[in-house]
Parts: sequence; structure tokens; C-alpha cells
Amino acid sequence: MHPFFLLSLLLLSYSASALQDDFCVADLSGPDTPSGYVCKKVADVTVDDFVFHGLGVPGNTTNIIKAAVTPAFVAQFPGINGLGLSALRLDLAPGGVIPLHTHPGGSELIIITKGIIIAGFISSSANAVYIKALKKGDTMVFPQGLLHFQINGGKSNAVAFVSLSNPNPGLQITSFALFANSLPSQIVEKVTFLDDYEVKKLKGVLGGTN
Amino acid sequence: MHPFFLLSLLLLSYSASALQDDFCVADLSGPDTPSGYVCKKVADVTVDDFVFHGLGVPGNTTNIIKAAVTPAFVAQFPGINGLGLSALRLDLAPGGVIPLHTHPGGSELIIITKGIIIAGFISSSANAVYIKALKKGDTMVFPQGLLHFQINGGKSNAVAFVSLSNPNPGLQITSFALFANSLPSQIVEKVTFLDDYEVKKLKGVLGGTN
Amino acid sequence: MHPFFLLSLLLLSYSASALQDDFCVADLSGPDTPSGYVCKKVADVTVDDFVFHGLGVPGNTTNIIKAAVTPAFVAQFPGINGLGLSALRLDLAPGGVIPLHTHPGGSELIIITKGIIIAGFISSSANAVYIKALKKGDTMVFPQGLLHFQINGGKSNAVAFVSLSNPNPGLQITSFALFANSLPSQIVEKVTFLDDYEVKKLKGVLGGTN
Amino acid sequence: MHPFFLLSLLLLSYSASALQDDFCVADLSGPDTPSGYVCKKVADVTVDDFVFHGLGVPGNTTNIIKAAVTPAFVAQFPGINGLGLSALRLDLAPGGVIPLHTHPGGSELIIITKGIIIAGFISSSANAVYIKALKKGDTMVFPQGLLHFQINGGKSNAVAFVSLSNPNPGLQITSFALFANSLPSQIVEKVTFLDDYEVKKLKGVLGGTN
Amino acid sequence: MHPFFLLSLLLLSYSASALQDDFCVADLSGPDTPSGYVCKKVADVTVDDFVFHGLGVPGNTTNIIKAAVTPAFVAQFPGINGLGLSALRLDLAPGGVIPLHTHPGGSELIIITKGIIIAGFISSSANAVYIKALKKGDTMVFPQGLLHFQINGGKSNAVAFVSLSNPNPGLQITSFALFANSLPSQIVEKVTFLDDYEVKKLKGVLGGTN
Amino acid sequence: MHPFFLLSLLLLSYSASALQDDFCVADLSGPDTPSGYVCKKVADVTVDDFVFHGLGVPGNTTNIIKAAVTPAFVAQFPGINGLGLSALRLDLAPGGVIPLHTHPGGSELIIITKGIIIAGFISSSANAVYIKALKKGDTMVFPQGLLHFQINGGKSNAVAFVSLSNPNPGLQITSFALFANSLPSQIVEKVTFLDDYEVKKLKGVLGGTN
Repeated sequence: MHPFFLLSLLLLSYSASALQDDFCVADLSGPDTPSGYVCKKVADVTVDDFVFHGLGVPGNTTNIIKAAVTPAFVAQFPGINGLGLSALRLDLAPGGVIPLHTHPGGSELIIITKGIIIAGFISSSANAVYIKALKKGDTMVFPQGLLHFQINGGKSNAVAFVSLSNPNPGLQITSFALFANSLPSQIVEKVTFLDDYEVKKLKGVLGGTN
Repeated sequence: MHPFFLLSLLLLSYSASALQDDFCVADLSGPDTPSGYVCKKVADVTVDDFVFHGLGVPGNTTNIIKAAVTPAFVAQFPGINGLGLSALRLDLAPGGVIPLHTHPGGSELIIITKGIIIAGFISSSANAVYIKALKKGDTMVFPQGLLHFQINGGKSNAVAFVSLSNPNPGLQITSFALFANSLPSQIVEKVTFLDDYEVKKLKGVLGGTN
Repeated sequence: MHPFFLLSLLLLSYSASALQDDFCVADLSGPDTPSGYVCKKVADVTVDDFVFHGLGVPGNTTNIIKAAVTPAFVAQFPGINGLGLSALRLDLAPGGVIPLHTHPGGSELIIITKGIIIAGFISSSANAVYIKALKKGDTMVFPQGLLHFQINGGKSNAVAFVSLSNPNPGLQITSFALFANSLPSQIVEKVTFLDDYEVKKLKGVLGGTN
Repeated sequence: MHPFFLLSLLLLSYSASALQDDFCVADLSGPDTPSGYVCKKVADVTVDDFVFHGLGVPGNTTNIIKAAVTPAFVAQFPGINGLGLSALRLDLAPGGVIPLHTHPGGSELIIITKGIIIAGFISSSANAVYIKALKKGDTMVFPQGLLHFQINGGKSNAVAFVSLSNPNPGLQITSFALFANSLPSQIVEKVTFLDDYEVKKLKGVLGGTN
Repeated sequence: MHPFFLLSLLLLSYSASALQDDFCVADLSGPDTPSGYVCKKVADVTVDDFVFHGLGVPGNTTNIIKAAVTPAFVAQFPGINGLGLSALRLDLAPGGVIPLHTHPGGSELIIITKGIIIAGFISSSANAVYIKALKKGDTMVFPQGLLHFQINGGKSNAVAFVSLSNPNPGLQITSFALFANSLPSQIVEKVTFLDDYEVKKLKGVLGGTN
Repeated sequence: MHPFFLLSLLLLSYSASALQDDFCVADLSGPDTPSGYVCKKVADVTVDDFVFHGLGVPGNTTNIIKAAVTPAFVAQFPGINGLGLSALRLDLAPGGVIPLHTHPGGSELIIITKGIIIAGFISSSANAVYIKALKKGDTMVFPQGLLHFQINGGKSNAVAFVSLSNPNPGLQITSFALFANSLPSQIVEKVTFLDDYEVKKLKGVLGGTN
């Protein structure tokens, strides 16, 4: 018997008793928990759980914001469950905008791969504005939970890849939170100081009621 | 020598070699770190570092929102540094409102101690509205980073005590983030869909420029 | 078609694919995990999951400690699951006391809303005592895991609201841990230096055996 | 009725409503999550869930590395689930070695209880080597994720107890990762600079293919 | 020039720009923070920062508890700073005891290396007792913050190595917290139900006052 | 006075008392801690702290691995301190390779922006290989601490952007850890099973000694 053969056996016996440890691919059919989804069994995991193809496809920007967000969050990319990060792709046609929004659950790092994007965030303690025109190859970070936005700053399409420090960071677009639901206009006005006319107009166009 | 005397010595010698472990009162004159402020030396710590008196004093609500926020965050209450929670007091005169806001760094739990408060938050995934009229003794939780608000729902003063899951949770009031700084009106309009008239009007009253 | 209509669709398509992210209301019928309970399905969540009414009701203090603890931990308040905080109400009749105890899983912040409470904690490194008479509106923090207590320091009822930095912080009352179970008296005496007479007496009154 | 009797009742009513909080013994038949396994019901937990006997038994070192690793990870010791640490026993016969490896999920602390062990780790930022001959009673720490090894440095058996900062820290032995699977030789050579002869030889003895 | 030479340069240039990442040896002369001490400069770090010799030396058990605790916490062993674990050695002479205590900051895992130790902990939710006689090679875990104890259960010396899930876990011995300081007897009695005689007697022998 | 003017004042008074909370830009001249560098004062922070330009510049691949890594870790990009993520750029000329390596402190997510990259990682529990040829737009995740590699799989340059779940994740290249330092050949051979000839050859070309 080759002298290393028993070493091999040592390994096998260790492996046989070892359960999942390195990763926890989400079983999206199972329950979620505060730390992420329950794990798919290791025996059922394949390399395809760790690969996502959707970010290579330009999003459809023929809409009113002339922009598209393609997420690779845990719902789309189960392999990132529990690993502390996720991604998304931004496409901004000329004139396009990602409206003011937050990610309640994570910080964001953007890398511009095409075009020019004007990006900014606002701090909470002093409402300070941090804004910059970013060109291809530039990177900017938006701290967790702070309001930020991206605007196409050029005349051609702009593309960016974004990573976030949470497999399920959330995305709360301020104007949708205000105008695309049934929150009564009177309350919206009270908590924002906006005029009744403005609130009702935007509720109308964004599908809100009340 | 009493037989327990040596036990006492054991204790003392352990204590003598022990450095700080139980708490880390903030030395606000020192640097901050991602986990909180550097610690005050244990020898300089007194019980008063762990006690805060400010929440017993009603805030001044003779202002336009007819409301006041009195924070007991780490800047006001150094003893909570590193301990994972903070507090604040809300006073709402009749008609008072705490405008739409988020705490980027923590979840919030409110306990109503006087009056009636209409409180609500909006989820990120579907802009769902969770709203409730809370009376004395009611408690409500607002998950981290989500937009929420409080409105006096009665005809008399309302008071609430709030705790947050972070010694320094931040407070970002949406309308201040939009209108109380130098973020150009054109950008505000682009990222919110608001009218130029509305933006300029609110910038005017909230002290914003551009 | 109104130009904003497609923006609405963008939102809807994003929402449709988004799973739970903002919160994780406990499904108390499901299993617990080290990070908290598995989540209730978002479709079944209502505002009432985020609201708790129990803290408005004075606890019954007609007992030997003349005190009552009313918890709003995850077992009573499923909406706080995973959110890093919980609450409870203390009622202390004249002469009332919350006996020496710890919360193994979280730090505590107390706000006095009525009466006078003498509160204190003991540090581990030097057995240092931090004690203070707190009056209405005063706040004190007790670092995680340290022994602490509250005593009614006045002649009328005292009430306090407490928040803790964990949805399920635990509560270990030292005298119950020692005397209200089957831990043999001989062992209790060995590990505390208490007399046999004392141990057996307190075991008797607190329902302990052995 | 004895005056303390009601206190007892207070305790019981609190306990009755309390769910699991102090620990989360792994239910290994249930799913894993990013924070650890789902918890066994408290009613089914016994002291034996918190006790592990395997580390008292010398591992079988009659193999090619003349060494044995006996893990007390969560798979073997369900009581440590969620508690942030685990253990293992090392046995090194004369000439024995624990080959170069990492624990992707935790730092390691080793205590030598018999013999002499030469242990070392390599830092990532500068490939700096930290190496030491450890004798009985010596302790060394290996930071999370860094390559490290242990070699019997004496002429008799060596034994050590190891603790790790994770109930499921993983164990990746570099030479097994390279040579004991189906990773094509051509790729192994490309990513390590090793010669084809060497790679194929070690694949042969360690059971690798391709 | 050898073809690999440039690879070497690549490495060097990367290293030159890399700052500390793998570890953070405590600079005990600098400030502490909620996450641990500030780091010693990497250039000043040697292997001896990661090695501790104290656990090989039996503690002095010629005291009233016939026991000794030798800690390897961050104050004694700076290399574990930030790494999530620490260690200590227990020596128990015949009749020896480690009195009832908690570690507020971490869970504990004990490995018996000599003799017999009766160990136990008490849960918070139901005051349930988990107790076991452990012999050489047995391991037991005590969840964070719960009261636990160790008693020599044999007729010869017992030794154990303990690891904890925190570089600075704290150690609060209940009887010292109660009787070895200036906490007034009247308060001790009120918060424990102990008799005045007992409290004053133990205060006397443990060096307490008031 | 305009009725909103006092609201403005409310804001200002809140801001004036608020210290840093939203972010913690690294002061690289100050000490590091286990949670990251101490923070630069907010008053000295500008938008440029949150922007990094280096990833737009192709790395120099005229070296033996025909590849380049351009990091945007906290040392290069102070704005990400404490925010839980970092980035880097990979350039792979035809035939280029990023040798087998780990990031001890974080998981990695790669997005291919040009060319074809064969990427893979090896699990610890069973030495399972997860390997895939990735083309432009494909994303793959490598769980924390596991060995992984990237190889140019095409005939033209390949480029990828990588994000990591830690501002300072570390980078340990296995062959450099083995051959580019003073770790004695005899030990390298013992802990890897490699031949003396191979070890000495690679030490020679990578600049190692002993």
C-alpha cells in the first residue's frame, strides 16, 4: 500500500463527518431567518449556485426614468446567502436617473464601466451633500442607509456595477415610498411639508391612492 | 488569619491584572472608530457616566413642527458607547409631527407615555405602509433604515420614549436632506420628480440654497 | 399612457421578485436559530405584528417582591425578531424590588416614568458598585451580563420602561438560580460560601429541592 | 401561605412564557442557516448536549502523517451551536505533522499538553513567517484564515488541545485541496507554479484524478 | 532575468502598500475600544506576541477556595486582540472550587486534563440545572452570561484548560460581587433575600464594608 | 419670520450636537483597531474620501503571471473604512493567471467585464472543486477564506471587477506563502509533501531563502 494512502483515508473520514461549513446556498423554498435563508443541502449544490448570468444583459431603459436596475440579490443569486455581499447592474440611458433611495441593510460601492454618472449622497448629521461626476473606472461608496442617487451625466448610455455589503440589502426609493402606495395624502403632506397639489399629482402618476 | 482572607487576595490579584472589559465609556475627546469611541480609563469612570438626566425635561415644541426630539445618543450619554442601544424623547404638541425620517444605523422601538401618536413605516420591497394610532402604553417597532414618521393624533400633548439598537443610530429627515442644503434644485427635481416650484419653495423655507 | 406609468411598472417588477429583506417577524411556531426565529411570510405580516399593547397595563405587584416585570421580548412581540432590541415594563410598589439579576444576552437602558428607583450594577473586573437614585425622567444603562438591581426608593409606586439590546435577552435572577431548583444545597453552599441554614431556608420559600 | 410563595409564582409565570434564549443546541436533522443550525426544543435538551467525550481518546496516528485530528465541531458537539467556539484534539506521533492548512471560519488557539510542537503561521500582507517551538503548557494563536501548521518537534508523542472561534470553523488542508480531487493537473500547475511531475505524483498518492 | 523575478516584484509592490489586515496585536499602552485595543504596528510584532507561556505553570491553590485561575485574556496575551477567543487554566486542589460566576462577554468551553471536575450551569428561562461530573478528556460548554461553577470531584488535583469566545470575556464571581465591596448590607439583603447575619458575616470575611 | 424658520433652527441645533455617525473615513495616520482605523474628523472629510480613481487604469501585466491586481482596500480608499466592503480590479493578459489564493477576511464577488476567465474555488469539507468559465457579464462568488483562482480562458485580455465583504480582506497567495520567505525548505516539504527539488527551485525563483 502506498504510504500516502492512509492519509487519504484520514481525509475521507474527516470529510464524511463534516457537515456544511464553508457556505450556505439559500434554499429559497425554505424559511428565511434574521441571518439569511436556510441552506440548501451540500449534496445538491453545484457550481451554478455560485454563478449569476444576469448582469451581462443591459436592462431595458425605455421607461420614464430611462434607467434600469438589475439585481443580483439573494433572491436572484442564492449562492451569496450568508456571505455578506450582493451586486446589481445599473443602466442609464441619456437623461436617465436612479431616483433618490436608500439601502436599509447595506453600504454600496459603485464602479462605472461606461459613460459618466453624477452620483451623490447626503449625510444624516448635517445634511451635508457629497456629490461627484464619476467617469469610467471611478468608484464611489455610499454608506449604509443614507439617501443617494445616480444621474447620467453624459450624452450616451452609462453602465455601472454595484456591490452591496449584504446579500439582501433592500432598496427604498423615496418617491415610491411616498407616492406609490395608499399612504393618505394628508399624512404625506404632514410628514414632508409638500403641497397637496404636488402630492396628489405624484400619487396619480405613480399609482398611489388616498 | 481568617480562612477567607486569602480568597480576598486571590480576587485582588486577579483584579489588579484585569483591564477594562465590562464597558467602554466613550472618551468623546478621543477618536471615534467603526465600533464606537475609544474608552475612557476605568479609573476615571463614575456612576454618572451611566446616568443621563435629559429625557425628563420636555422639549421645546414652540416651533413649526410643534415637536421636539431630545437625543440620548453617545454624544450626550457616553456610558452607552459600545453597548448597542440609545434612547431619545419625543414631545409632540397638538398638531405636532416628527417628519418622515430614517435611522441609518439602527432599529427603533417607541413607547407612548402620554397622548395619542399616529406612527407608521414603509417597507422597501413593496412600499407597503404599516400605520397605527398608538395610545399610552403602546409600543411599536420600526425596522432599521426604513422611512417612518410620528404625528400627534390627539388634541393634547403627546410624549414618547424611544430606544434604538445603536449608540449612534443617526437621524436623516427626508425633507431636510432634500431642501436644507446646497444640493442644486435641478438635481432634487430630477431624483424626486418634484416640481421646480415646490423644491424652490421648500428650499427657501428650510434654508437650502441653489 | 402617462409617462410615469412605466416607472410604476419598473417598481412592480422589482417588487415582485424581491423577497423579504426589511424585517423578519418571528414565526413562533417555527424553529428558533442562533440569530432568531424563522420569519413569518411577508404576505401574512400586518401592522399588528409591529405593535405591542402590554406595556400600558400596570403589572400586579401584590406579591412578595411588591414588583412586576412585564416583558415585550420576542415571545410576546414577534415583530422585533432580528431587530436587535426588546422592551419591558417595571412596576414597583412601595417597598418593591427587582432582585439582583443579569440579562445574559443584552445591555439594558432604563427610563423612569414615575417615582424614585434606586438602581445599581456591579462591574466584573473589580466588583465596583455603580449605584444611583433615579427620579422621573432619568435614564441609566446596565452593561451586558453584569449583575444589577432596582429598588423602589420612594413612598409611592414607581414605574419604568426598559429597553434591551437583544430581542431575547434572557433574565437570570440570582436567588432563583440558586434556590428555586433542584441544585443540591451542598453544592450551593460550596459555590457561594453561604451557610446551610440559609440555603435550606431560601430553598424552602422559593420552591427549591435537595 | 409563606410570603415568598407568590414570588415563586411570579417566576413560574415568567418562565412559562419564556421561550428559548440562553442557548440553541443544534438540531442536526434540521436545516442549517448562516448563523448555525436550527435549535433543538428546550424541553428535549439535556446536560449531555453540552458535554463531549471524544477529546479524551488519543487519535490513531498509525498513518502516513503520523497524526490525528479529533474534532469537536458542531457536527460532533451540538451544544456549541451559536456559541462562537469549538474544539479539537491533536495527536502527533514522533515525526508527525498536521499539514499546512487554514480554518476559513475562525481563529485558533492551541494549548500543548504533552511533548514539543513546532507551530507556525504565515501572514498575508508580507508572507511573514511566525514560527515557534512550543512545549507543554505553551499557548499560541493563529489568526483566522491564515495558513498554519504543526509538527512534532520532539522524540515522543505530542498532544494539544485546540479551540476555535466558530462552532463550525472549517479545515482546508492545502495539499488535499490541490491534489485530492479532480482539479485538472494543468490548472493546478498554472495556479501554483509546480511542475507537472510533482503534481501528478501527489495526485497519485492522495487519490486525485485528472 | 529569471522569468519569475517580476512576479516577486509584483508581490513586493503589493505588500508595500498593504497595511495591517491579518491580525491586530493589542497595544496595551494605547486606548481600548468597543472592538478591542488599538493595534501594535506590524513592524513591531514578533512571534512572541502570539505565544503565551503562563498556562503551563500550576496556579497556587494554597488559599481558601483551594483553587486558582490563570487567565490568558488580552491583558496577558496581546496577540488574541480582535480574534474572538481567549483561554485560562484552572487548578483545583482536593476540595477546591471555582465559585459561582459568569463571563458577561463570552461562552466558555472547558477541557479536563487531570482529575475529576463537577461542573454545572443554570439556565435563565427556567432556572434549569445542567450538571455533570467530568473526567479527563471531557469537554463541557457554558453558554454566554449564565451562572456556572466547577468543583473538584475527586481526591487528587484537577486541572482544566478553558477557552472563551472573547479576548476579554470578564469574570464576575457572584459572592464577590455581593460581599467584597461597599454595597450596603441593607441593599444586598433586599436584592437577594439573604439574612442580615449571613450578609455581614460574608462581607467580613471577603473584605466588604457597609 | 417665516414659519419654517424655526424648524431650520431645530435642525441646526440637533446637528451641532451630533458627532460622527454615518461613516468613519479612515485616518491612516492614526491607529488601526479590530473594527478598522480610527476616523478622520468629519469636518475634514470631503467627497474625494469616498471616491477612488485607480480601478479605471489597466494594471501592468508585463510580468511572469501576465496579470495584475489593483486593490481598492482601505489603505488605498479610506472612505470604505467600517463599511463592510472593498474592491479590486483584475487584468489578465492572454495566458495570465491569478495564482491560488485566499482572502482570510472576506468573501469575494467577481464581475467579468471583458474576455473569458476560468475561475474556481475548493471547498474545505470535501475538497470539492467548483469551477466555471465565465464570460463578460458573468458573476461568481467565492466564500470567505476558501482557496480560489482566476485564469484567462481566452486569447485576448480579460478584465474583471471584484468586490469583497471587508474593507481590508487580506490576500494570501499560496505559492508566495510557501516559497517567497524564509520558511525553511525542510518545513515546507514536511507540511506540503512536496519534493526538496521543487521547493528549492520555487524558493529560488520567488526570492525565498533557507
